Amino acid sequence: MKAFEIAEFVGGAVSGNSQLEITSFAALNAAKDGDISFLERAENFSGTNASCVMVPAGFDTTKVPSAITVKDPKLAFARIAQKLRVHKNLSGIHETAVVPPDDESGTHIRANFIGAQVSIGKGTYIGEGAVIHDGVRIGNNVTIKKFTVIHPNCVIYNDVEIGYDCVIHAGTVIGADGFGYVRDENGVYHQFPQVGTVVIEDNVEIGANSCIDRGALGETRIGEGTKIDNLVQVGHNVNIGKHCVIAAQTGISGSVTIEDGCVIGGQVGFGDHVTVQSGAVIGSQAGILPGKIVRPGVWWGTPIQPLDEYKRQNAHVKSLERMKADLKEIKRKLD
Amino acid sequence: MKAFEIAEFVGGAVSGNSQLEITSFAALNAAKDGDISFLERAENFSGTNASCVMVPAGFDTTKVPSAITVKDPKLAFARIAQKLRVHKNLSGIHETAVVPPDDESGTHIRANFIGAQVSIGKGTYIGEGAVIHDGVRIGNNVTIKKFTVIHPNCVIYNDVEIGYDCVIHAGTVIGADGFGYVRDENGVYHQFPQVGTVVIEDNVEIGANSCIDRGALGETRIGEGTKIDNLVQVGHNVNIGKHCVIAAQTGISGSVTIEDGCVIGGQVGFGDHVTVQSGAVIGSQAGILPGKIVRPGVWWGTPIQPLDEYKRQNAHVKSLERMKADLKEIKRKLD
Amino acid sequence: MKAFEIAEFVGGAVSGNSQLEITSFAALNAAKDGDISFLERAENFSGTNASCVMVPAGFDTTKVPSAITVKDPKLAFARIAQKLRVHKNLSGIHETAVVPPDDESGTHIRANFIGAQVSIGKGTYIGEGAVIHDGVRIGNNVTIKKFTVIHPNCVIYNDVEIGYDCVIHAGTVIGADGFGYVRDENGVYHQFPQVGTVVIEDNVEIGANSCIDRGALGETRIGEGTKIDNLVQVGHNVNIGKHCVIAAQTGISGSVTIEDGCVIGGQVGFGDHVTVQSGAVIGSQAGILPGKIVRPGVWWGTPIQPLDEYKRQNAHVKSLERMKADLKEIKRKLD
Repeated sequence: MKAFEIAEFVGGAVSGNSQLEITSFAALNAAKDGDISFLERAENFSGTNASCVMVPAGFDTTKVPSAITVKDPKLAFARIAQKLRVHKNLSGIHETAVVPPDDESGTHIRANFIGAQVSIGKGTYIGEGAVIHDGVRIGNNVTIKKFTVIHPNCVIYNDVEIGYDCVIHAGTVIGADGFGYVRDENGVYHQFPQVGTVVIEDNVEIGANSCIDRGALGETRIGEGTKIDNLVQVGHNVNIGKHCVIAAQTGISGSVTIEDGCVIGGQVGFGDHVTVQSGAVIGSQAGILPGKIVRPGVWWGTPIQPLDEYKRQNAHVKSLERMKADLKEIKRKLD
Repeated sequence: MKAFEIAEFVGGAVSGNSQLEITSFAALNAAKDGDISFLERAENFSGTNASCVMVPAGFDTTKVPSAITVKDPKLAFARIAQKLRVHKNLSGIHETAVVPPDDESGTHIRANFIGAQVSIGKGTYIGEGAVIHDGVRIGNNVTIKKFTVIHPNCVIYNDVEIGYDCVIHAGTVIGADGFGYVRDENGVYHQFPQVGTVVIEDNVEIGANSCIDRGALGETRIGEGTKIDNLVQVGHNVNIGKHCVIAAQTGISGSVTIEDGCVIGGQVGFGDHVTVQSGAVIGSQAGILPGKIVRPGVWWGTPIQPLDEYKRQNAHVKSLERMKADLKEIKRKLD
Repeated sequence: MKAFEIAEFVGGAVSGNSQLEITSFAALNAAKDGDISFLERAENFSGTNASCVMVPAGFDTTKVPSAITVKDPKLAFARIAQKLRVHKNLSGIHETAVVPPDDESGTHIRANFIGAQVSIGKGTYIGEGAVIHDGVRIGNNVTIKKFTVIHPNCVIYNDVEIGYDCVIHAGTVIGADGFGYVRDENGVYHQFPQVGTVVIEDNVEIGANSCIDRGALGETRIGEGTKIDNLVQVGHNVNIGKHCVIAAQTGISGSVTIEDGCVIGGQVGFGDHVTVQSGAVIGSQAGILPGKIVRPGVWWGTPIQPLDEYKRQNAHVKSLERMKADLKEIKRKLD
């Protein structure tokens, strides 16, 4: 793409040589001829070999061969990098993959690529453009829509539904039984039926070695555009809204609802039946008691509090030494 | 099964049409003709299409076609659902599985089903009725007893023993080396030998992507009927008793003992050589210092305290603002 | 090996029968004829059937057939056990493995053993003596140096480099995309390019089901001799030094630097851009705010504090009940 075409794509204003050919992308200090890069703050610039740089307003664009002035250079860079990335043209079905033929039970496999030693069950639909990497296990009656990429050794249990343009990283397990037991009078645990399913909407990304359990009697759902990191646990009947972000190692207990647009840090723990309202932000390592309703705002600590309350309380605790000294002095005076 | 047969099975009293044929199960609001469902509290009933409902004493049984009155409707429902569940009759050995022939070294493979691209080592015993799903790796000299189900892509290292009727969910690793090193005078770490094993007793269930390490020189053991959730870490030489429940993402360090009937929340962290006495309940995200003995009761926080102490202390911290104001007022009066 | 040869190997002084033949190793109470064992404190000895025991100075060596007096008996035992361990001579390439032939693009596969249903990409180098267990997935342009062992069902993404003598336990994923997104004005997340790589230096060991993400534009690096436990998360562009130890379920956010010789407990959480200076020790479940510089010393709690400050503060909190009573008494006196 030429610089002016990129400017059009990201909605920015090109300066300098708008005809320069851009073939790849890199960080400012690693970029070379033909690369596009980005600069978040004009004052941080210290030279680059990039041919073109996404810059904020106020940058002296004569310092680089070509520049594209945009509101959010990092976002513009992310968007153009995605476009420039050489999608390795994976295609074909590896001879060692176990893929059932189309049949009247609904089996319909159209993926662009199915890797070595994949196995796929019956009644399963995989759309065009999908990429199923080596060693993935896909059960019966699964739906995987167009252009979704499943990385190696993931396991998708029976009846799970995954939308368009999703990316699931290696080792992630979707649709295992939820953790639900009923204890009898002898202290023996009996599994409560875990026969629901998982629905993952379009454009969801899930990291490596995460677990999304199936619903007990209903469904576990992950909304459109939500991004989930590595080693995250999502329990049965959890309902996560659209465009949420959930960082690594967070654990979400059964029947939690997280509404649209929430941001959840890493290693957060949710008790069951929590509701997080749209737009809430929960800090890393926070703990949320069962049944709690978390309103919009920034939350912190265990049990969670609004961030400013948490900070105030923390300051009080830090002043305990002083308070003790005051008490001692007062007692001395009174005596 | 007919309603009266189900009543007999769960030890309840049938009312209404005891001859109704029950073929499946569902939640009250999703149930349809032929389904059995359950109601935990009589006052929560708001109609259902179920043919039969497990109900507590005091429910007006004329509101449904047939009812079974039991002490614990949810438990009765779990037990009958397990019975009604159509066990997909998985059978056969997939042609891509690598399964050694029986031999005099003890190799003896009798599983009902071995899926695609499974590989199994030598000297390994797998009992009748066992189900080994696609992509599972089983080492040498492993024992897996009758009716145990291993879900896809699990890894069972050499010498591990798994009992009857266990369920291991996808991606779980049993028998990897424990984390034990000895540091030399140059700061270099040398692995302490991790040559023990893992014994998993009957009727244990383990979630997805969990890790159960082998003993260093002895064994790691998980007692009969214990249920472990996803992404749980069990270190070397841990000894977990019978009928315990351990929620997701909990980490148990080396040489911890957890006695029978304990309940452990999610994201709990155990230092090494902790002993948890029979019947203790440990809240989520709790942290337990190395060597601690945890007595029966309910425990909370880091480092753990009895729940009522934790609550009292939390209340004290919340009252710090008030205490500071009191101190200020007293100082004013004294001056 | 004979007792005197072992003494030479570990730099100790042999007593008793220095010609005894040692064939295996075990704990003191489990050892039998032909075994070597170890004793950490002379006063803890209560008999053994071992033929030879590594002992500290001051032990009465006439109590055992042969003894080797060393400074650190546990370290000496670890070193000799590693030597005595029968390395099962795994060799050959399983017929079901998908291994590309050497070619001019750099494909060069020399591993001693490649297990069943392994798949390996193009341009990948695997050195002599390496062991690649069943079901491992190795991408394109990967480097795995001599004598490294990769346990079953691990996934190594494209372009990753792993040094000599490393051990990676089952289910671990190396090189998945880091978790980096840019949010647009509509609240939609766009992936920031994750096109860097992972470099793992020599003699690193990583536990089961851990995740090491690739760099965004640069590299994620794990230094020589570092040991990482199970279920650990290492984010993009993290730089871990040499001879560090990181316990299970710890999560390290993007762009964290951990210098040489640090010890990190389990379930620790790191915000992004943290720097941990050489020799720091961080207690389990600690939480470190983004951008923090952690100096050498022992650290504890969330947010982390020096251990002695943490203990002092904890003691203050425990004395709140007493302080309240004092306040009440003072107010009474003043009235």
